[in-house]
Amino acid sequence: VCKVALVGFGTVGSALARLLYARRGEHPLSLSHVCNRGVDRKKVGWTASDVVWTDSIPQVLASDADIVLELMGDIDSAYELASGALRWGKSLVTANKQLIAHFGSELLQLARDHGQYLGFGACVAGGVPVLSGLQEGLAGDRLVQIGGILNGTCNYILTRIEQAGSPFSEALRKAQQAGFAEADPSFDLDGQDAAAKLAILARVGMKIAILPDRVIRRSIRDVTAIDFEYAHELGCSIRQISTATLRQGEVCLRVGPSLVSKGSPLAQVSGSQNLIVSTGEFGGETSFGGQGAGGEPTAVAVLSDLIQAANYRFHELPLLEYSAAKESLVSNRFESRYFVRFVVRDRPGIISSLADVFAHHGMNIDAIHQRPGLDKACLPFVITLETCCESQLSSAIEEIGKFDFLVSAPLAMPIVQ
Amino acid sequence: VCKVALVGFGTVGSALARLLYARRGEHPLSLSHVCNRGVDRKKVGWTASDVVWTDSIPQVLASDADIVLELMGDIDSAYELASGALRWGKSLVTANKQLIAHFGSELLQLARDHGQYLGFGACVAGGVPVLSGLQEGLAGDRLVQIGGILNGTCNYILTRIEQAGSPFSEALRKAQQAGFAEADPSFDLDGQDAAAKLAILARVGMKIAILPDRVIRRSIRDVTAIDFEYAHELGCSIRQISTATLRQGEVCLRVGPSLVSKGSPLAQVSGSQNLIVSTGEFGGETSFGGQGAGGEPTAVAVLSDLIQAANYRFHELPLLEYSAAKESLVSNRFESRYFVRFVVRDRPGIISSLADVFAHHGMNIDAIHQRPGLDKACLPFVITLETCCESQLSSAIEEIGKFDFLVSAPLAMPIVQ
Repeated sequence: VCKVALVGFGTVGSALARLLYARRGEHPLSLSHVCNRGVDRKKVGWTASDVVWTDSIPQVLASDADIVLELMGDIDSAYELASGALRWGKSLVTANKQLIAHFGSELLQLARDHGQYLGFGACVAGGVPVLSGLQEGLAGDRLVQIGGILNGTCNYILTRIEQAGSPFSEALRKAQQAGFAEADPSFDLDGQDAAAKLAILARVGMKIAILPDRVIRRSIRDVTAIDFEYAHELGCSIRQISTATLRQGEVCLRVGPSLVSKGSPLAQVSGSQNLIVSTGEFGGETSFGGQGAGGEPTAVAVLSDLIQAANYRFHELPLLEYSAAKESLVSNRFESRYFVRFVVRDRPGIISSLADVFAHHGMNIDAIHQRPGLDKACLPFVITLETCCESQLSSAIEEIGKFDFLVSAPLAMPIVQ
Repeated sequence: VCKVALVGFGTVGSALARLLYARRGEHPLSLSHVCNRGVDRKKVGWTASDVVWTDSIPQVLASDADIVLELMGDIDSAYELASGALRWGKSLVTANKQLIAHFGSELLQLARDHGQYLGFGACVAGGVPVLSGLQEGLAGDRLVQIGGILNGTCNYILTRIEQAGSPFSEALRKAQQAGFAEADPSFDLDGQDAAAKLAILARVGMKIAILPDRVIRRSIRDVTAIDFEYAHELGCSIRQISTATLRQGEVCLRVGPSLVSKGSPLAQVSGSQNLIVSTGEFGGETSFGGQGAGGEPTAVAVLSDLIQAANYRFHELPLLEYSAAKESLVSNRFESRYFVRFVVRDRPGIISSLADVFAHHGMNIDAIHQRPGLDKACLPFVITLETCCESQLSSAIEEIGKFDFLVSAPLAMPIVQ
């Protein structure tokens, strides 16, 4: 039997403990410690009587636990715990994507040095086994693109705006009430959460070493119901899409609201689900979908890692390759068709002013979309652009931002499928 | 370097050899032998000069190859080669689903006895890494259903009937011309191919030992364009769906044409793609999609297995669990709503006769669908039934088969989503 010390008894932690008991006899694990700040208010009656409840991390590190399960959330304490556990000769399982995205190489090296297992399959897409799929099942291919829907909070909010026509703020409040968004949702909305997952995917699937702050991010905060109306006219929906693309030795990673064709699998992803699509040079597209968040699906991913960690004591399994990654040139030459939505005080000459700026930056206008009967004092309309670079677009949008006919900043989204 | 002897130089075999060379330096493998009957007409100029071309399997077995790759197709010769290779202390990789579905347990035991690796990830769904996903990534869950679209040939034919309104025979001929169906397509159309894959999925994902001949099969040969018209009226499409369901300790496996809701991911699967959906008691639904057939995607899956086999020489990896499976009660109590299409010489009293039979077998009619303006001498119409058992339905259909107003045998399909 393998003893597990669980650190962080929140939603995932308690779901994991319940799952360990529900599947008793089907795995080689037993819960030895539960550690949490102010542990007394966390104590529950349904764990085995020999479980040690503690708020002392040193006590966990000095214990006879074989595996430490890190579910604390905060990156600094997580790093302390993770590196400490590996140094003390314990295997480590974590669901902390920021920890792995920032310190994965270092922790893997520590795990190797101390002959321990490091499992982080739950860091990306909760219950969806995409990391092992990329690493093992697609080892035969050379992946050139990995992307998809990596953040359930954004997907929940966007599908809510789409289905109920709610304003952004109301959709966010609903997500918070339903437990799909945190009190401070910035990491989800502004893309830091998806960026960390994308960096881990690029590392495992493409062997590219990249920190999450190199990912180009755009927030979904400016998406409104009118954007969905225009997107629908183009046969599209809007989703937060993350993409890592490898071209001519350069990698480009971006996260942000994007138009996806209504017929594509990405547009079918609703609520808090995740879908990841990898594209291989030889095998074409492969997709992995499922519950990207929530206590039970994440607990399943964590338990799968714990079982691997226990197997590691008998077989010396290869660790998920993380430190073998190469540095790569990061490019911001993300190319795409674009959808740009403006809100203006209408007057003659606006299109001509905008067209001048786009022409000046070498970009071609594909079409102009304006729904009839809208308020001229606060008029939303859309310009679609032919394929151009993210960098061209950014310069053009910056220049356009100075026009006094704008009621709000333009919202630009790539049309990715 | 790990030496690979390739036996069977057809579509997948030559794609694999090309892939090995295209990714030279990115894997630890080298091709040492190519074995095929009448090897002289197979020889190509682009392999390394030290590759031994032979038509002698004994020569392969006696060689210094570390891994034998079995791509012959025929199950008896494949069994001879596979068991021989393992006994001679070589690892084995195969893409032969019939071999694994029938002799998987025995071969795994042989591999264990001789300390060798047995890889069969390419047996199910070509390039889609579903077996390792079920075995490792979802190890934490208890799977209660596994199913989906496992046969690209059927999917190609059905989507062609749907899109072009072609008769079945024409759609089949097109599939053969495009290389998606073999000269004798029975194994694909009548479900033996999908049944073998489903048995392997149930074994790896649910730990249930079952031979493919216990799978309930219905052919897609009787599906016509009119069935799609009626299915569309119900908001559905038609696909060959395979399902393994575990309920109260009994397992039910079936393969056959089925109605799936137009909005479901299964209905979006087109051409020769595969999609597998697993349902876990704790983690909910997880999906795996991609290229289910074709030389290159299958070669990617085979190369992934070869890389695992090479790793096995350094780490003693756990083998895909196959022999650990339990025998399980097989049930034919597959429950579903049903769509039954009749073609009749119209006259008064037909509905009443059919309704009597269904009532007699305890089944409730949900609705009757008849398109206007069809030929009364050869009239297709549809009865949908409320949830009932496959066994109830079979008895009713058998009794109905005796009516003299039928122009052809009725076609019954479950409505699965």
